[in-house]
Amino acid sequence: MSVHRFPCRVYFEDTDAGGLVYHANYLRFAERARTEALRDLGVPHATLMAEHGLIFVVRRIKIDYLRVSRLDDSLEVITTVLAVGAAKAELAQTIRRDEETLVAAEVVLACVRCDDGRPARIPSRWRHAMRGLAQELSGAED
Amino acid sequence: MSVHRFPCRVYFEDTDAGGLVYHANYLRFAERARTEALRDLGVPHATLMAEHGLIFVVRRIKIDYLRVSRLDDSLEVITTVLAVGAAKAELAQTIRRDEETLVAAEVVLACVRCDDGRPARIPSRWRHAMRGLAQELSGAED
Amino acid sequence: MSVHRFPCRVYFEDTDAGGLVYHANYLRFAERARTEALRDLGVPHATLMAEHGLIFVVRRIKIDYLRVSRLDDSLEVITTVLAVGAAKAELAQTIRRDEETLVAAEVVLACVRCDDGRPARIPSRWRHAMRGLAQELSGAED
Amino acid sequence: MSVHRFPCRVYFEDTDAGGLVYHANYLRFAERARTEALRDLGVPHATLMAEHGLIFVVRRIKIDYLRVSRLDDSLEVITTVLAVGAAKAELAQTIRRDEETLVAAEVVLACVRCDDGRPARIPSRWRHAMRGLAQELSGAED
Repeated sequence: MSVHRFPCRVYFEDTDAGGLVYHANYLRFAERARTEALRDLGVPHATLMAEHGLIFVVRRIKIDYLRVSRLDDSLEVITTVLAVGAAKAELAQTIRRDEETLVAAEVVLACVRCDDGRPARIPSRWRHAMRGLAQELSGAED
Repeated sequence: MSVHRFPCRVYFEDTDAGGLVYHANYLRFAERARTEALRDLGVPHATLMAEHGLIFVVRRIKIDYLRVSRLDDSLEVITTVLAVGAAKAELAQTIRRDEETLVAAEVVLACVRCDDGRPARIPSRWRHAMRGLAQELSGAED
Repeated sequence: MSVHRFPCRVYFEDTDAGGLVYHANYLRFAERARTEALRDLGVPHATLMAEHGLIFVVRRIKIDYLRVSRLDDSLEVITTVLAVGAAKAELAQTIRRDEETLVAAEVVLACVRCDDGRPARIPSRWRHAMRGLAQELSGAED
Repeated sequence: MSVHRFPCRVYFEDTDAGGLVYHANYLRFAERARTEALRDLGVPHATLMAEHGLIFVVRRIKIDYLRVSRLDDSLEVITTVLAVGAAKAELAQTIRRDEETLVAAEVVLACVRCDDGRPARIPSRWRHAMRGLAQELSGAED
């Protein structure tokens, strides 16, 4: 897997009275894609919660809205890993329709404890799986 | 308090590409109103969770969509209690714009345990508070 | 096609602080399934809007919440057509996890004009396609 | 009005199975606040659509999640205008609980035509009203 691809259809719930996808809903598409990326990497988020009492939360998002999207559009969320640190990971996600990029986002995730929200180390199984995605992209050394 | 009234504005997030409020979002308005009704009755849902480990969940909804609503409409959710049993409560909720009823719903709530979802008795403080709302409406005996 | 089956995954956006799927969100799953059912029947909702200036809106829903659902659950929405009249259609939809029914809904749709919301006849292409689904189920005559 | 303040309560619909407000939902709170800010400035978004056929869309958001928020929290969205150009406006929005900043966002809005989405000049009535908010903040000249 060089990048993760997640297909996504635009339904009525995703649009607003302007006739377009409501801007906050692209973040929902991006989150679905991150969840599926972890599952496809063999390190599901649910396992992180159940076995380690940890959860990834969003620390920062920069999101550019480049083109609009409408009801029934068939979209694809492309997810790549930019960097994985001890307690944080940085991802790039774009949302495309055919080959056209509609939305480009950079997302910083932090690993925190479910019970008190304090920062925690990303377990090595997750760190390596996520870096694996980045390595294939960039050839960077661990 | 004879009935509970909760004001509610329609924002972009509530509408869809048809230009109207998306049908499922009226249930969000109704749930906000139930939460505020319990708070205003002095028996907040949060206290039910924290002190008793219980939560109200929706068991059944019948909802009629009579008239449409649009961006920027100023709505009001009217909540009344039809019946409060040992472990269930039945409410009537209407959503109005001025004096016009847009949506009419009957909602059955069940009291369940947070940890395992099993049915549980509604604590007497909640039962009496909710019946108080119904009594004032109907004059019914406890 | 005897019934329409639509797969659906539970993501964070679908859950609430009770740890379960938020009740209104099952209506979103059901609407996605209706949209895909029309598409798979060859009579997309988008075409109804573009060619006829018509839209299906929800007139009434009865929904029973029988069992709960959690993050990461893999669900299926089963849609069948109960009746198709001149301007209305009635559907039954259940949401299942494996063979277990979690939610059962009856949905009445009305066909209305996009511009003024007035009731309109369902175009025959849509009526026949939707009845086709019902016929295969029930053997009922048109 | 030096800054615009918009109160906002956290309901079940806003939270997720992690027990916290779902990250994308802060963007919904921020959008509600922008809508109310325009209304309170006497230049409602609805009027922009009805009289000019124009709409503000989000072009870019940078959002930092600093502290978490939970069910029943009483929040406040603080909105200020950083700059208003011919066809774009830049706002700073923070979401606070008491005096604590939970979320800080910079939002770039573009004025576009409803019919084809092409960039358009912000009508002077809106430009001046929005600059008025910024001026009071900064004392900057128009």
